[in-house]
Amino acid sequence: MTDDSERQVGELAARYMPETRARIEAAVARTGGLAPLLRYHLGWRTADGAPANGGGKALRPVLCLAACEMAGGDWRDALPAAASLELVHNFSLAHDDIQDGDETRRGRATLWRLHGVPTALTAGNAMLAAADRAMLDSPERGPKASAALAAAAELTAKRLEMIEGQYMDMAFEADERVSVAAYLDMIGRKTGALIESAMRMGALAAGADRETAIAFGRCGRRLGVAFQVRDDYLGVWGDPAATGKAVGADIRRKKKSLPAVYLFDNALPSDRAWLEETYRAGEIAGDRLEGVMALLDRLGASAYVRRVAEEQAEEAVAAVGALAIPDDAKRLLRAVARYFATRDR
Amino acid sequence: MTDDSERQVGELAARYMPETRARIEAAVARTGGLAPLLRYHLGWRTADGAPANGGGKALRPVLCLAACEMAGGDWRDALPAAASLELVHNFSLAHDDIQDGDETRRGRATLWRLHGVPTALTAGNAMLAAADRAMLDSPERGPKASAALAAAAELTAKRLEMIEGQYMDMAFEADERVSVAAYLDMIGRKTGALIESAMRMGALAAGADRETAIAFGRCGRRLGVAFQVRDDYLGVWGDPAATGKAVGADIRRKKKSLPAVYLFDNALPSDRAWLEETYRAGEIAGDRLEGVMALLDRLGASAYVRRVAEEQAEEAVAAVGALAIPDDAKRLLRAVARYFATRDR
Repeated sequence: MTDDSERQVGELAARYMPETRARIEAAVARTGGLAPLLRYHLGWRTADGAPANGGGKALRPVLCLAACEMAGGDWRDALPAAASLELVHNFSLAHDDIQDGDETRRGRATLWRLHGVPTALTAGNAMLAAADRAMLDSPERGPKASAALAAAAELTAKRLEMIEGQYMDMAFEADERVSVAAYLDMIGRKTGALIESAMRMGALAAGADRETAIAFGRCGRRLGVAFQVRDDYLGVWGDPAATGKAVGADIRRKKKSLPAVYLFDNALPSDRAWLEETYRAGEIAGDRLEGVMALLDRLGASAYVRRVAEEQAEEAVAAVGALAIPDDAKRLLRAVARYFATRDR
Repeated sequence: MTDDSERQVGELAARYMPETRARIEAAVARTGGLAPLLRYHLGWRTADGAPANGGGKALRPVLCLAACEMAGGDWRDALPAAASLELVHNFSLAHDDIQDGDETRRGRATLWRLHGVPTALTAGNAMLAAADRAMLDSPERGPKASAALAAAAELTAKRLEMIEGQYMDMAFEADERVSVAAYLDMIGRKTGALIESAMRMGALAAGADRETAIAFGRCGRRLGVAFQVRDDYLGVWGDPAATGKAVGADIRRKKKSLPAVYLFDNALPSDRAWLEETYRAGEIAGDRLEGVMALLDRLGASAYVRRVAEEQAEEAVAAVGALAIPDDAKRLLRAVARYFATRDR
């Protein structure tokens, strides 16, 4: 990346996250004996309960609060939604780790690896209950109650779409022929829906009209897809020093991310038998790995995946192009979109 | 059981359930590709999608709607809460089956047994999202929105308490010394909290004041504990022809239900070594099973467990004793409480 878009996104996070984190902690503290497990999963504590400096990129709260400001609101009005979004996201990660059998996340043991599946499953459910409490426990009355109810319904609908995306993802892993279009639809649900909800709720918290909220939501959904497609790129061609993953990591574990989907969609009949055999065996390594990487190269997969991320980012920016929001806001959104589509880690 | 309390509870279900079921189905239909799995788990469909006549006792919706009527309301006003409660309960059952490794429920293969843990986990999450949609998707405006928001917050808080109860239950299974008091607190959360919420939301939907709603909620919590304790009784001393379980079923599988908790709490020092050794080995069967059953007998465990259920039922009735509700309503509640504490299946 050659510009300062990463710095701009980092500045947003630095401004919003202390108060967001306090909101999240207030919800987590209500989960009783499960709270230490939630704090561990969030990256705030070590397994022994000591302070830790982990945690993810917090994209969902940041985009929610930024959308609120861009739409002319006070970002603090969107704090219940922002806290709730981060907890919903972490609920899905805790359960994803169980479903995928992943033993580490961000370099630490996953919850199920530390405490077993039954306890990790319950901790994920507690995370979601904390999310819902963060959203619902504000004592709204009168007209604000209608808005709070609408926001909670909106978030629930998008959570359901995310769950459908997870279900499709599992089905795709077992299916050799998934089209690029079906794959993009799936990640639109699995990753895009919650980020759509983030920007839409942010706009609604600013008192934006329905059309503005929908445009922000559309922008968020495309940003989510751009982010995931760039993730897919980095999982195969990322710099190990930046990503912490080996070259070709997602090929090795036969993950059906966009590079593999593109490969199966575009492989010549003469390569197909070898390719299918390779994906039917155990881990892909050694000569087999080199063979798949060479095939991706011949088909121009790397440039294709990069381009898809950039197209999605452009669509995200275009979605809010016609809105009467300040030029500063549009510039910031362009920086966010650029970061999502071109980040190195 | 020598009275007609079971018939009276059955009549309530027959009156309420067709419309409740239609509400649940409307929420389930929104879960896309996951809907067939939800209908299977609910007992409405076979694994092949053919109609089925299964399903549980639907206690939570029935108590919610009955509480609404008893508090002077129109039971249809409580339908969103009733549908949501049944879906939350089924969410917890789907995940419980994964956690406990149970292969059958009500005589049919459990979801995880049929579709694997990852899919069953996701189906449970979809069930909960459907529950939340049933609760939140009513287009309430103005003063009704405040009430709807309060009801959703109330249900979320009780769901979190239920999850805490599940967590405690898992911890208890691994612990040899659990007191009767700690056990009753745990089932108050795991089973009682959601039934507390059911009756409280029913009363609130009737427009009842805060104190009345709290009294109904207290009644519901005690009813939930009575129901569970009677379940514990039937799991050891129930008639196999009525329950479908073998004599001593919960002892065989070393379940830490009230009989076992009472046993460990009250065993003489001279019996303790044998008892602890018995519970450390594999399944309890043959001479060992007869030995445990004889020990329960000597300690009067059967009469004790029956009495706890009856005391909880009495407390449930007493909780609404001072309320200005019709005598008919109080008589009906007494019948429900009697059924919960004395049912044979």
